[in-house]
Amino acid sequence: MSKHRVVIIGGGFGGLNAAKSLKGADVDVTLIDRRNFHLFQPLLYQVATGALSPAEIAFPLRVIFRRQKNTTVLLGEVTDLDVNARNLILNNGEAVPYDTLIVAAGATDNYFNRPDWLPFAPGLKSIENATEIRRRILLAFETAERELDPVKRKAWMTFVIIGGGATGVEMSGAISEIANDTLHRDFRRIHTKDSEVLLIEGGARLLATYPEDLSASAEEQLKKLKVHTKPHSMVTAIDADGVEIKVGESVERIHSKIVIWAAGVKASPLGKLIAERTGAETDKMGRVVVEPDCTVKGHPEILVIGDLANFSHDGGKPLPGVAQTGIQMGKYAARLIKHRLQNQPYKPFHYWDKGNMATIGRAAAVAEVGKLHVSGLLAWAMWLTIHLMYLVGFQNRIVVLLQWFYSYATFNRGARLITGNKDQLTPVD
Amino acid sequence: MSKHRVVIIGGGFGGLNAAKSLKGADVDVTLIDRRNFHLFQPLLYQVATGALSPAEIAFPLRVIFRRQKNTTVLLGEVTDLDVNARNLILNNGEAVPYDTLIVAAGATDNYFNRPDWLPFAPGLKSIENATEIRRRILLAFETAERELDPVKRKAWMTFVIIGGGATGVEMSGAISEIANDTLHRDFRRIHTKDSEVLLIEGGARLLATYPEDLSASAEEQLKKLKVHTKPHSMVTAIDADGVEIKVGESVERIHSKIVIWAAGVKASPLGKLIAERTGAETDKMGRVVVEPDCTVKGHPEILVIGDLANFSHDGGKPLPGVAQTGIQMGKYAARLIKHRLQNQPYKPFHYWDKGNMATIGRAAAVAEVGKLHVSGLLAWAMWLTIHLMYLVGFQNRIVVLLQWFYSYATFNRGARLITGNKDQLTPVD
Repeated sequence: MSKHRVVIIGGGFGGLNAAKSLKGADVDVTLIDRRNFHLFQPLLYQVATGALSPAEIAFPLRVIFRRQKNTTVLLGEVTDLDVNARNLILNNGEAVPYDTLIVAAGATDNYFNRPDWLPFAPGLKSIENATEIRRRILLAFETAERELDPVKRKAWMTFVIIGGGATGVEMSGAISEIANDTLHRDFRRIHTKDSEVLLIEGGARLLATYPEDLSASAEEQLKKLKVHTKPHSMVTAIDADGVEIKVGESVERIHSKIVIWAAGVKASPLGKLIAERTGAETDKMGRVVVEPDCTVKGHPEILVIGDLANFSHDGGKPLPGVAQTGIQMGKYAARLIKHRLQNQPYKPFHYWDKGNMATIGRAAAVAEVGKLHVSGLLAWAMWLTIHLMYLVGFQNRIVVLLQWFYSYATFNRGARLITGNKDQLTPVD
Repeated sequence: MSKHRVVIIGGGFGGLNAAKSLKGADVDVTLIDRRNFHLFQPLLYQVATGALSPAEIAFPLRVIFRRQKNTTVLLGEVTDLDVNARNLILNNGEAVPYDTLIVAAGATDNYFNRPDWLPFAPGLKSIENATEIRRRILLAFETAERELDPVKRKAWMTFVIIGGGATGVEMSGAISEIANDTLHRDFRRIHTKDSEVLLIEGGARLLATYPEDLSASAEEQLKKLKVHTKPHSMVTAIDADGVEIKVGESVERIHSKIVIWAAGVKASPLGKLIAERTGAETDKMGRVVVEPDCTVKGHPEILVIGDLANFSHDGGKPLPGVAQTGIQMGKYAARLIKHRLQNQPYKPFHYWDKGNMATIGRAAAVAEVGKLHVSGLLAWAMWLTIHLMYLVGFQNRIVVLLQWFYSYATFNRGARLITGNKDQLTPVD
């Protein structure tokens, strides 16, 4: 009799941890991803701001599973799902049969039905986007240096970040440090310290999911970095020359050549496919509503985990879209499968909230661990330690540590390259 | 009275060394490049083969000249030259006046009037091309893993490198090591060791500019790496399915999905512009024929150096297109300018041949230093040392050393990423 076949879609935090936790289990695992690497998304903003190189936060899936004999990695894209025959269909027409399917396809940027804004305001969801954002930021200063018209020059030195969540806070802090610390002696005609960094937030405060005191602390720390925070600001238009925002009843136009989108995410389009094929419900972000054991209603053989899942059995509101959710659900999925193989029941999934942290800049961060709220240097040290710990690959850890040490000592950034020739950004999803 | 204005086109080995050697001189230096970094081209093949990240072999020009007060860096592209008004025209219409002009715009791939071959056989002249080649090599193995038709699978595992110079030798050795040492335990369906690496050379031997015994040694060392060398082979066609070569009177078709061009270079298009504006002669590779002091005939205020120059006053044949030519000419150009400012005559340029070296693989290389011919481990150790020495940036040296050490110890490669979505390669020149 052939072994129980577990097929996992996605090599992010959820899929990776599910596959790793099935090491040694009496199953055949197939991990399918469109990319050949696991990407450590929490540090992607450091690629976008020239602090790290792409390869330093990415690790080949095949290397991770080289010695895990029961696991096969396939580079491929899922185009359909046959729930009756229990087959996944890939873009080359190949059918991949499964006994248990784990869908961990993650999330993508949400432009809230304004896909036309994408070329003017790229988000931070892929390596390609990160190097494109890096290109735009660095090219902006270069163009300003050559621009003689002061109005146009100002637009090249005005950076707008849309969305005051963790990504927006991290990006705006980092861009301000580039302007004030990294580049300030490198130009002859412009003063990079004259740059303006604006962080646009629709709600009343930054980091809305954090406690209020940490939101206030983040705003204070950003202010020290000269980031201008604009709360209660709804974006009403984005084009090649800037952003239009509505604050209360007044409409304001910001002239800017560099706009970055960090306003929210939605589920991968695979969520819709799963829902169509299984009759599962999706929420307004396109996430699949799952049962207490992360399975799809009526399909115990299909699990949806991580950012793609709406899991609301732990306190009523969906779990946050953070790495920990994916990691814990991935490990849970593996344990559930192992119990089933032994015909043993298994307890429902329970999320253990280990806390939240966002970095703002040099020695600046906020962290919430249980009832403990930490700001500044200590939070930053915690952030550095935890991110190094979770980064996959011993070599990556050493190199990233070295790059951070170097950046800290010199204010420089190791990957200040303008590469690529793209004029238009195309969606990666 | 305003200072003597030196304008330098190109931040490669020639332009960089000219500008650096003018440090402290009583001149205003403007260094113009299309890119914001100096690229260490000799290690570009290591980016193309996943051993290094782009940022590790590139260094921002602005950082290099941060403390050199007499030097301004401009990101820009030269579109015209007004020799009477002594103005360079940039792509934004800006005119940059000069008293002395140093043109160090380098070389690009030469497809010998077959630009239609470019999309099927990218060359190794830019970071974009290198990451595209990396993408094609890694994607080939991934596609082979999913391909069931044995004939098609074989084409995905057949790598053709055209041109048996240093770049071709380095690329073919590195690709063979990827197949045999790096990936051989990573796939489940294919045996990456079954890959075929073919090095196509039009002439009788590899490394034609090296002594015959070193050519023979290189061929021997490549053979140990299972690279199949095909001398006397003229390429007659390249398309999406492979290469057609003519060996003597017989025509052979090689089915291959990955073809890399290393068959030769030609001068940057700026050579033609210089010739048209000054009446200078160019050779058949588009290089500007220069006087014994690297100036253009009739225009002592214009110097052409590095790969863009045909300098034939040192033994009759043009100097080789290697880093040393650019470095030495750059330093010479600076000294010539300093002498002129003192109204002192200066001796003609003389090339000091420090030797040649090409690496083949792990502990495999050839080197010619004066009358000394070295092969194998010793040549490889020399190659490593010299390349680390010449790499710009302390941090880059440390990181590259670390990556090499890691690769040597583990056979792995730190930058095994498939990135980019390009289906077509566009020329960078």
